[in-house]
Amino acid sequence: MSEQQGNMPHQSALFTDLYELTMMQSYYAEGMNAVSVFELFFRKLPHHRNFVMAAGLDDILNYLEHLRFTDQERDWLKAQGGFSQRFLDQLQEFQFTGDVFAVPEGTLVFENEPVVQVIAPLPEAQLVETYLLNQIHLQSVVATKAARVVSAARGHRVVDFGSRRAHGTDAALKVARTSYLAGASATSNVFAGRHYNIPATGTMAHSFIQAHPDEYTALKAFVQEFPETTLLVDTYDTLAGVRKVIALAEALGQDFKVKAIRLDSGDLGKLAKESRRLLDEAGLNQVKIVASSGLDEYKIQALLEEGAPIDGFGVGTQLAVSGDAPELDFSYKLVEYANQPRTKLSSSKELLPGRKQVFRFFEAGQMKWDVIARFDETLEGQPLLEQVMSQGKRLERGQVSLEQAREHARKQMEALPPEFHALQSLKQGYPVTVSEALRQANEQLQHELEAELNS
Amino acid sequence: MSEQQGNMPHQSALFTDLYELTMMQSYYAEGMNAVSVFELFFRKLPHHRNFVMAAGLDDILNYLEHLRFTDQERDWLKAQGGFSQRFLDQLQEFQFTGDVFAVPEGTLVFENEPVVQVIAPLPEAQLVETYLLNQIHLQSVVATKAARVVSAARGHRVVDFGSRRAHGTDAALKVARTSYLAGASATSNVFAGRHYNIPATGTMAHSFIQAHPDEYTALKAFVQEFPETTLLVDTYDTLAGVRKVIALAEALGQDFKVKAIRLDSGDLGKLAKESRRLLDEAGLNQVKIVASSGLDEYKIQALLEEGAPIDGFGVGTQLAVSGDAPELDFSYKLVEYANQPRTKLSSSKELLPGRKQVFRFFEAGQMKWDVIARFDETLEGQPLLEQVMSQGKRLERGQVSLEQAREHARKQMEALPPEFHALQSLKQGYPVTVSEALRQANEQLQHELEAELNS
Repeated sequence: MSEQQGNMPHQSALFTDLYELTMMQSYYAEGMNAVSVFELFFRKLPHHRNFVMAAGLDDILNYLEHLRFTDQERDWLKAQGGFSQRFLDQLQEFQFTGDVFAVPEGTLVFENEPVVQVIAPLPEAQLVETYLLNQIHLQSVVATKAARVVSAARGHRVVDFGSRRAHGTDAALKVARTSYLAGASATSNVFAGRHYNIPATGTMAHSFIQAHPDEYTALKAFVQEFPETTLLVDTYDTLAGVRKVIALAEALGQDFKVKAIRLDSGDLGKLAKESRRLLDEAGLNQVKIVASSGLDEYKIQALLEEGAPIDGFGVGTQLAVSGDAPELDFSYKLVEYANQPRTKLSSSKELLPGRKQVFRFFEAGQMKWDVIARFDETLEGQPLLEQVMSQGKRLERGQVSLEQAREHARKQMEALPPEFHALQSLKQGYPVTVSEALRQANEQLQHELEAELNS
Repeated sequence: MSEQQGNMPHQSALFTDLYELTMMQSYYAEGMNAVSVFELFFRKLPHHRNFVMAAGLDDILNYLEHLRFTDQERDWLKAQGGFSQRFLDQLQEFQFTGDVFAVPEGTLVFENEPVVQVIAPLPEAQLVETYLLNQIHLQSVVATKAARVVSAARGHRVVDFGSRRAHGTDAALKVARTSYLAGASATSNVFAGRHYNIPATGTMAHSFIQAHPDEYTALKAFVQEFPETTLLVDTYDTLAGVRKVIALAEALGQDFKVKAIRLDSGDLGKLAKESRRLLDEAGLNQVKIVASSGLDEYKIQALLEEGAPIDGFGVGTQLAVSGDAPELDFSYKLVEYANQPRTKLSSSKELLPGRKQVFRFFEAGQMKWDVIARFDETLEGQPLLEQVMSQGKRLERGQVSLEQAREHARKQMEALPPEFHALQSLKQGYPVTVSEALRQANEQLQHELEAELNS
């Protein structure tokens, strides 16, 4: 991946909030260079979500490995004024030297469970907050949406069509990546296909039909270049378009190798049924039907429930922007500094102190409940957080191919009990509890802080 | 800007949907290289929007100017199979040679009004669809959101805090850019500050307070490095935090130069009033109050309506993802090929044929109504679309600095009648009509198409 990512902005140490830099200077000035533990987690599942699929780890490890300040960047910071020369000099030597623990990409996670844990000297761990949140947030939002879409499609192909409505170029690539991670079959984005080595597919646009003198001429011309393509049939009148495909099949005989037609407007369920009937009557049973046009998991579920004979779904806008839940409240919080647990008391934004581990319990291959515990506890369940980086270097555990992550994601969805695949929020969410030892540690620290405030 | 953008994916010709490439090959094979006109527009204002602020033009002109296929990219396409050698050879010479008309960035636009018009040989105009939509969509979504936030803040400072929740790195930079375009004062993102030469600002995070033995020590240490900073006061108890700032002011005397405190949780209106009272009683009238924490235009409006003494707003997630309208239904449609107007009939996705111009009518400096007309009509209103590129080269009209665009956006918002600043959708939207000549041209073409379908 390094070839194309060479100069992408996420490689710049300046892709950060200004306060990370001012805090760094202050930490250095005070000699506060002891080891800190920051945890990245979300506090609340958004509406319509019964799980979150974690994603983005590969990019943040890549970022952490390459994080440096260039001379030009330090010169620019100097020209802004406000930073001390001592600090600017310290940045020359800066690199990330910490350890990272994380849940593997594709893992299902729930409220308050650490997804990434950064253990590093305080200034280093502070600087990386913005990029880590930016990537884990985006990629988890989209992986979660894609997992829902794939689940609703019940084994039918899902293809990412979202590049035009994704929020920028980075999002378009990450939508392609995380959709594939979550089980989509392909993307329409060629750059993403190359960059991530995932299948890129495509059909044809209305403009192609419109530019030709008539629809039949257009379909025939396209098939000449791409015999095994998918033909768009709804530019003027969907069923008339299907009849033109049938006429083309009759004209071409053995040379007709078209794989599918695409419906992109109107009542997709009804049109799919009528198109299927026309195709089958013409003996074109092998020609599949692909649908697109404002699809999401809810519409796909409804189409399949009404028995629409649709073989594949092109999902664009709603997959790309996750319209019903475009954000998750991920935070990156200090939970330990210099071996002391830390918390805060801000109303409604409480924080479990100290470094943690999550243990997951299974029964008959199905996830049953999770326990958030102190890191030094050993419970019977499966620990979710694994070490993926040591002293700034990626470990083998952190070198997971996209195909491996995709297989992990598939197994996670298989282990998720059926009720949590529901597209609407359940009243009773997946059970996550806090271990007795963590609960006691939290209470004790909260008491200490309150006592201090009242003193 | 070219320095950092050098290798960003949007410079790659492969940042496109696969079907753009297959259609291109087919166009070339058929010799369909005549001039086409594509228009980029949206069909429907989303809920909660009475206008859209157009943005993204600078990036698409930059893209069009530099668009080339590298040898490595062509080799990769060849290795995929499916493309003809003739086409791959043609890509070697490819560049964008067309003209572009567009509304200036910061212009307010409405349903069915072309925002960008591409006039170029068909294969060229087709290829660029994906990137043009990707950037105009993202940047217009965010500029619109930011314009609403700035409008709701009634002259109080708005700062972009959205980088951590923006959808990826490109979005984070474009959120900073378009927020500033739409009237925000600054961004927290340092890379964006450098890249776009806009003010970068910041305060401090809870982690800074937490890492220190106590809140007062933390505040004092930070002020030592950054005397004119903004201090975060809500880590443990907001009003206790304010009292610590006051104690610090008393201890430092003349050396106390803190500019503001920041509230980041709880009932911001109530806490702002109580904080203001405490600060004023201590003679710290010059210390301003900045608020953040899940803000958007609705909450800002409510806070100001209840008289909250808040001087500035840090707006993050909702600005960055435009949660109440994360997408607009922008399309890029062929309206003319080889001098013939084009349309389509797909149900509910109709299309006004032929190249168009938009005329805006004013009364006493206020926008009154728009007319969408044929491009060859001359109406009395102000034409919105201007030529910004000729034969693949940017014209002076297309070289607008971000500061100039910001001033244009400010004037646009000033000219927007007060009722359309409402945060909720109005029943009666801004009036946009279609000229008589365009209406007739449309009817005629629809009749012709229907006659052909029925023949």
